[in-house]
Amino acid sequence: MADKIFRVNMTDLTTSVEDVPEAWAGHGGRGLTSTIVAAEVEPTCHPLGPNNKLVFAPGLLSGTVAANSGRLSMGSKSPLTGTIKEANAGGTSAQFFARLGCKALIIEGQPKEDKWYSLAVDKDGVTISEETELIGKGNFTVIETLAGRVDSKLGLITIGQAGEMKLSAANISVKDPDSNIRSGGRGGLGAVMGSKKVKFITVDPGDGKVEIADPDKFKEANRTFAKSLVDHPVTQSLAQYGTNVLVNVINESGGLPTRNFTLGQFEGHDKISGETMFDLIEERGGKPKHNCHAGCVIQCSQIYNNLKGEKVTAGFEYESIWAMGADCCVENLDHIAEADQIMDDIGIDTIETSVAMGVAMEAGVLPFGDGEGVCRILRDEIGKGTGLGRIIGNGAGSVGKAYGVTRVPVVKNQAIPAYDPRAIKGIGITYATSTQGADHTMGYTIATNILGVGGSVDPLSKEGQVELSRNLQIATAAIDSTGMCLFIAFAALDNEECLPAVIDMLNARFGIALTADDVTNLGKHILKTEHEFNLKAGFTNLDDRLPEFFYTEAVPPHNVVFDFTGEEIDTYWDF
Amino acid sequence: MADKIFRVNMTDLTTSVEDVPEAWAGHGGRGLTSTIVAAEVEPTCHPLGPNNKLVFAPGLLSGTVAANSGRLSMGSKSPLTGTIKEANAGGTSAQFFARLGCKALIIEGQPKEDKWYSLAVDKDGVTISEETELIGKGNFTVIETLAGRVDSKLGLITIGQAGEMKLSAANISVKDPDSNIRSGGRGGLGAVMGSKKVKFITVDPGDGKVEIADPDKFKEANRTFAKSLVDHPVTQSLAQYGTNVLVNVINESGGLPTRNFTLGQFEGHDKISGETMFDLIEERGGKPKHNCHAGCVIQCSQIYNNLKGEKVTAGFEYESIWAMGADCCVENLDHIAEADQIMDDIGIDTIETSVAMGVAMEAGVLPFGDGEGVCRILRDEIGKGTGLGRIIGNGAGSVGKAYGVTRVPVVKNQAIPAYDPRAIKGIGITYATSTQGADHTMGYTIATNILGVGGSVDPLSKEGQVELSRNLQIATAAIDSTGMCLFIAFAALDNEECLPAVIDMLNARFGIALTADDVTNLGKHILKTEHEFNLKAGFTNLDDRLPEFFYTEAVPPHNVVFDFTGEEIDTYWDF
Repeated sequence: MADKIFRVNMTDLTTSVEDVPEAWAGHGGRGLTSTIVAAEVEPTCHPLGPNNKLVFAPGLLSGTVAANSGRLSMGSKSPLTGTIKEANAGGTSAQFFARLGCKALIIEGQPKEDKWYSLAVDKDGVTISEETELIGKGNFTVIETLAGRVDSKLGLITIGQAGEMKLSAANISVKDPDSNIRSGGRGGLGAVMGSKKVKFITVDPGDGKVEIADPDKFKEANRTFAKSLVDHPVTQSLAQYGTNVLVNVINESGGLPTRNFTLGQFEGHDKISGETMFDLIEERGGKPKHNCHAGCVIQCSQIYNNLKGEKVTAGFEYESIWAMGADCCVENLDHIAEADQIMDDIGIDTIETSVAMGVAMEAGVLPFGDGEGVCRILRDEIGKGTGLGRIIGNGAGSVGKAYGVTRVPVVKNQAIPAYDPRAIKGIGITYATSTQGADHTMGYTIATNILGVGGSVDPLSKEGQVELSRNLQIATAAIDSTGMCLFIAFAALDNEECLPAVIDMLNARFGIALTADDVTNLGKHILKTEHEFNLKAGFTNLDDRLPEFFYTEAVPPHNVVFDFTGEEIDTYWDF
Repeated sequence: MADKIFRVNMTDLTTSVEDVPEAWAGHGGRGLTSTIVAAEVEPTCHPLGPNNKLVFAPGLLSGTVAANSGRLSMGSKSPLTGTIKEANAGGTSAQFFARLGCKALIIEGQPKEDKWYSLAVDKDGVTISEETELIGKGNFTVIETLAGRVDSKLGLITIGQAGEMKLSAANISVKDPDSNIRSGGRGGLGAVMGSKKVKFITVDPGDGKVEIADPDKFKEANRTFAKSLVDHPVTQSLAQYGTNVLVNVINESGGLPTRNFTLGQFEGHDKISGETMFDLIEERGGKPKHNCHAGCVIQCSQIYNNLKGEKVTAGFEYESIWAMGADCCVENLDHIAEADQIMDDIGIDTIETSVAMGVAMEAGVLPFGDGEGVCRILRDEIGKGTGLGRIIGNGAGSVGKAYGVTRVPVVKNQAIPAYDPRAIKGIGITYATSTQGADHTMGYTIATNILGVGGSVDPLSKEGQVELSRNLQIATAAIDSTGMCLFIAFAALDNEECLPAVIDMLNARFGIALTADDVTNLGKHILKTEHEFNLKAGFTNLDDRLPEFFYTEAVPPHNVVFDFTGEEIDTYWDF
C-alpha cells in the first residue's frame, strides 16, 4: 500500500487521509516537513495562530531495519525564531508512522472552544478525542497514565505544561522503548502543538510493515553501514561516555562557553564530565548504554541514578549538561540531572532554558552556580507559569529583553549551544547562517574543527570555515531526510563505504537509482526551500549574524573574537 | 554666539562642546536627532549597549517667543522597536537648551562601573556627577528632592524606576513649569538613558537668549500664527476638554478599540469622556486648562483632582484614558487617573503599558475592567521589577510572547494607539509605514478621516488613505523639526496663513529664505533618513504590515477588516 498523508483540521475537528502529491514523493523527514510547511504555511502568519501547521514525518528509511533510522522530524513555523523549523528526535514513533503507512501527519487550524484533545493515529487514519484528565500534567504522568489506558507499546508524542502554556522553549517529546523521553527541543514546537490544543498523539503501527523493493540489497547495505558506525572511534566513545564525552574535549579546546559566555573554560569541568558521569552511573547501578529506538547500534543514551540508586534521568546529553553546568557554573552533576528530569517532565528545551538561566544569573535573578535555585525555578516558576517562569521559559532572548541584558547568546532568538563561536569559528558560521537559528546540529563543524573527523580545519582560523559549514549543512539536511541519527555523520565523513551504503539502502527501499550527487542536491534543495521561507517571513542577510558582543568581547583563554565580516558570512549562500 | 553640539561620553566620563557640522546646521528637533543617530549609530547595534547614543535636541524655533514651540526631541535606536526613534515632549527643557546655545546633547558610551550619574547642562557645557540618593526613586521624588538641591526653575529631564530597569516602555520625562511631568513616551528611550546610567539631567539657561535675525518680521509672523491656532475649532475644543474630547468622537466613529481590540465601541465611553472629565475637574477644583510650556496658546493639559480635591495627575491625555479605559474596559476615571499618576512616577509609557495590560487581561492575568488590579500591578509588579512587572513593562508585544496570545496590537513591536485601523483605515497606513512602529502622531489621519480637518477622506474606504498618510507623515516630520507642538497641524491644514507664518518665523529667526517646498523636502528627507537606518538595521517592507488578526477579524460595529494588500501599503514609499 502506498504511503499517505494524514491530515487533521483542529478548527472543525475533521481528519482525512490523502494521496501523496507528486512533489512530496521523494521527500522524507526534514525534507518533507520543510517542503510541506513551505507549501502550505503563509510565512508571515503568527506561529501560534490558526494559520500555522505542525507536521510530523518519519524519515525515508524509518521503519526499516536500517541501523539508527528512527528519528522523527517535526516541522512548523517556530514561535521562538519566526523561521521555518525542523526538530527531530528518537523514540519509537517514527518507525511506527512509517510502518502504518503515514508519510506525514499534518495538524492545522485551531479549536474555537477552549478544549483540549488527543489524536490517535493508526493505519486507518486519525481519531480526535477530547482530553481532560491529563491537562496540566507533565510528560511522565502522561506516559504513566496512558500505560493504563492504551497498549503501552504504542508510539506516544506528548507535550508537558510548557507546551500547554505555549512557551517558546517548549518541547515535543517522543516516548522511547522504555518509556523514557526523547525531545524535539529546539524552536518551541511544543508551543505550536499546544496552540493546536493537542496534548498527546498515540501511534499504533498495527501489523504494518515497510515494503522493501530489493530486500537482499538492502540487508547487505545495512550490514556495511552498521559496521562503519561501530568501527568509528568517535562513535565508540559516544557509546561509552555518551555525548557528554565532549565536556573535557571542548574545555581543552577553550571553546566551552562558561558563565554566560564570558569564559571558554570551566574550572569545574571534571565534576560534570562524561568520564565522571560514567563512573557515577556504574557506581550507582545505572545504565551507561541505552538505545532511544530499536536498531540503534551506538546507544549514546544512558540511565543516570541518584545516590540511592533510583533513576533520575535518561538521555542526559552533553549540551544539556554544558548549559546547566559550565554556562550556569553549576558543578553538581546531581543538581544538573534533577534539572534535566524536571525539564523533560514539563517538556522544555534543556539548551534554551539553561542558557536562559545563565542570562538570568547575569541579570542577578539567582547567583551563578546555584543548582538548587535552578531546580526551584524550573519547578515552581516555569512549571507553574509565573511571570518569572514565563520569562525564562520563553528562552534566552526573552530573559535578555526582560532584564535589559546585552550579553545574550542567541541567533534568530534561539540560544547558542555548547561551543563558543569565537574559539571554534566554523560553528559560528553554522549558527549565523542556519535557516533555523543557532543550532549545532545543523552543520556540526566540531567534527572537523575539534575531533579531526572528515579532515582538519583549524578552529581559530577563519580559513575554510564557511566552506566546511556549508558542506556539513548540505549533508545534514540530506541525512535529516532519511530518519538517520546525525551521529552517522562521523562514519560518513571518514569511511568511504558509509554514505554509499546509505544510498544503496534508499535505492533498495524504493527501487530507485539515486547517486551521491542526487543526495547532495537534495540537501541543497532543502536548505534553499527553508531559506526562501525565511526571506518571505521577513528575514534578511542581516539576521545571519552573531550578537554584537561576540565581535567585541574577546573570550579567554585564546582571547579571540568572532571576526567574520557580514560579506564573508554571506558567501555561505553561494551554492 | 553660534549654537554648539554638547557631547557626553559615559564610558570615560568626559564631555566636550563642539562646532555644529555643516550637514547638521539646517536641522533641529526630530530632523536633527534622526540625522545624528543615522550618522553616528551603527544600525545593528544593541539598543542598550555602549554603541547606541541618546540625542536631545530643541526645535528650530524653540527658545523663541513663537507660540507652542517648546517641544524637546529625543532620538536613539529604540529598545522597543529596534528602529530609529524620536519621541518629543513639552516641558521647559527645549527652550532652555536653545537659550543656552545647545543645538543638541549627545550621550554616548556606557560606564564600566555599576554607578549612576546626573548631568548638569549650562552654557559652558556638561558636568557629570555621581548620583546615589535618587537611584531607585520615582520621577516626582526626583523633582521634589532636586527642588531642595538646585534652582527649581532649571529644566529637568529624568527617568523613573522603569528607565533604571531598562524596561522597553520606559519614558524620558521632562519637567513642566509647574513641576508636573511631560513624557517622551514611545519607544522606550528611558531605557536607553538608563543603560547610560544617567538618572537625570538639569538644564540651566542662565541669561542666554536666542538671537533673531529679523525680530520685527518674527513678531508679526508669530502674531498671525498664534491667531490661526486660537481661531481653529479643533484647537478650541482641545483647550476646553483636553485631548480627551476624542473619546466620544472616536467611539461614535466605531473606531475606539475596546476590550483588547475586539470591539470598536465602548459601552462605558460616557464615564471616561472629556466632557465627564471636564465636569469632574470643575466640581473638584482642578484646572481644566494648563500649559506644559511657556508660550502655549492651546493649553490642552489640565490638573485632575480626586474626590478630596487633591491633585492626582496632570496632562491626562485621550490616548492614555482610552488605553486604560476602553481597551482594558475600566469605567472608573479615578482609577484611570491614579494609574496615570503611577505611570508618570515610575516613568513608563501610558499607551504601551495600558495596551500591554489589555493583552494581559486577554491572557487571564487579571479581569477586564479591573482598574484596581491595574493600579496594583503598576505599583507592586512593574514598580518593583517582578517577573510579571517586567513582562508588562516591556510592552504589549512582550506580554503577547510571554503568554502566547495572538491578538497583540503592535507594529514593529510598538503598541497600536487609540484608533482602530480597520474602522479608520488611514491611520492603519500610518501605523504600518511609520519609521517608528505604530504611532498616531507620525501621521495623524484622524484629522481628515474623522475631524474633517484638511478636507475629508472616508475612514471606511481604502481610497486616498495612502496619499493622506504620506502627506501627513511628511508634514509631521517637518513640524517635529521646528519644536512646534503637533497640534498646530489642525490650523496648518485648514488656515492658509498658518504654515506660511511658520516659514516666515524660520526665515526671520535664521535670516534665510525657505519656501514651502523646502519644508516639504525637509520632511521627505527626514523620513528617508529614518527609513534607510531601519533598512540597515534589518527591517524590510514585510515589517510595514499590521498584525495578522486585523486582516482576519472583523471589528464591530462596522464589521470591517484591514484590507490593504502589501503592494498597496508599499506604495507609501513612492516619493
